[in-house]
Amino acid sequence: MKLLEDKIRADGKVYDGDILKVDSFVNHQIDVPLMNELAKEFYHRFVDSGVNKILTIEASGIGIASLTAQYFTAPVVFAKKSRSANLAPDVYTAKVISYTHGNTNNILVSKDYLGANDRVLIIDDFLATGEALFGLCDLVAQAGATLCGAGILIEKAYQAGGKTARERGIRVESLARVASMSQKDGITFVEE
Amino acid sequence: MKLLEDKIRADGKVYDGDILKVDSFVNHQIDVPLMNELAKEFYHRFVDSGVNKILTIEASGIGIASLTAQYFTAPVVFAKKSRSANLAPDVYTAKVISYTHGNTNNILVSKDYLGANDRVLIIDDFLATGEALFGLCDLVAQAGATLCGAGILIEKAYQAGGKTARERGIRVESLARVASMSQKDGITFVEE
Repeated sequence: MKLLEDKIRADGKVYDGDILKVDSFVNHQIDVPLMNELAKEFYHRFVDSGVNKILTIEASGIGIASLTAQYFTAPVVFAKKSRSANLAPDVYTAKVISYTHGNTNNILVSKDYLGANDRVLIIDDFLATGEALFGLCDLVAQAGATLCGAGILIEKAYQAGGKTARERGIRVESLARVASMSQKDGITFVEE
Repeated sequence: MKLLEDKIRADGKVYDGDILKVDSFVNHQIDVPLMNELAKEFYHRFVDSGVNKILTIEASGIGIASLTAQYFTAPVVFAKKSRSANLAPDVYTAKVISYTHGNTNNILVSKDYLGANDRVLIIDDFLATGEALFGLCDLVAQAGATLCGAGILIEKAYQAGGKTARERGIRVESLARVASMSQKDGITFVEE
């Protein structure tokens, strides 16, 4: 989506260690008018999927998930991160490795808020290795819910997550697909 | 605000230790259509204040803050929590004690996203002791920004935070002010 690609070109910053910093408009400061346009785009792409719940993960997915949810008139559920394994009987849990932060989180959702009648759209800001996405898909499966797909703001298309997800039959809609990035040559996007 | 009070009466759960659990609609699952009505109410209350930035704190403030920000056509900045003191020169930091979780967090905002030209509306889900609110006010002061006020979903009016904040001259608008709560007698609200 050109609107987001242009914004990333203008304000995204590439750092060593494969880091694309977008905290001026995505994950520290949130450009809400921009995010609202992206939320509408997710709505248009999934409008026929019968979505009745948006699932994301704290913290940076919550803003775009909430803006998207209003168009579906659906609630958001955000998975919580916990350093310790939570073995409580009333939650679904999955393990998620963060390569960015070099640690492993357990993510969890209360069984009260995800169930067999839910048709779930996962919303998140980034897709790279797919760790977070597959963790969320795992929670959806545990709940017996139906996965409609995943709406992603920025996919690092040169990493395996998106490819693996699509091979598994998950409908992934990424609004910007980074083909390559470097401080020297800047950022290029996959031509759709 | 009756809409929110009714929802709290219907779906809020009171637990030992002064806990009001609202995670079915505020801070785990987010009832986005409801939050959108509350967001509009914040807009109506602060529409004449020249707000150009919404400040909140991760994670549970981000949803309501993002929905509110769209009416002001303003960005959201969410303060991040860190267990360790971050002494980086490029952030504002404040210390916040969490009585709920029994720990102390440092909250931080990048200096890039809060500055002297900002007219800030703080949005948060709860106000009790005021720790989080005063930490956020501290960040606003460090930035030399103007504080327009604070929009709070649920104030525990029997705790000191709201009173102290108003005595300090902070305009606090709470949409539901809990006067008392117990498992036995239920929840009562301050009559406005």
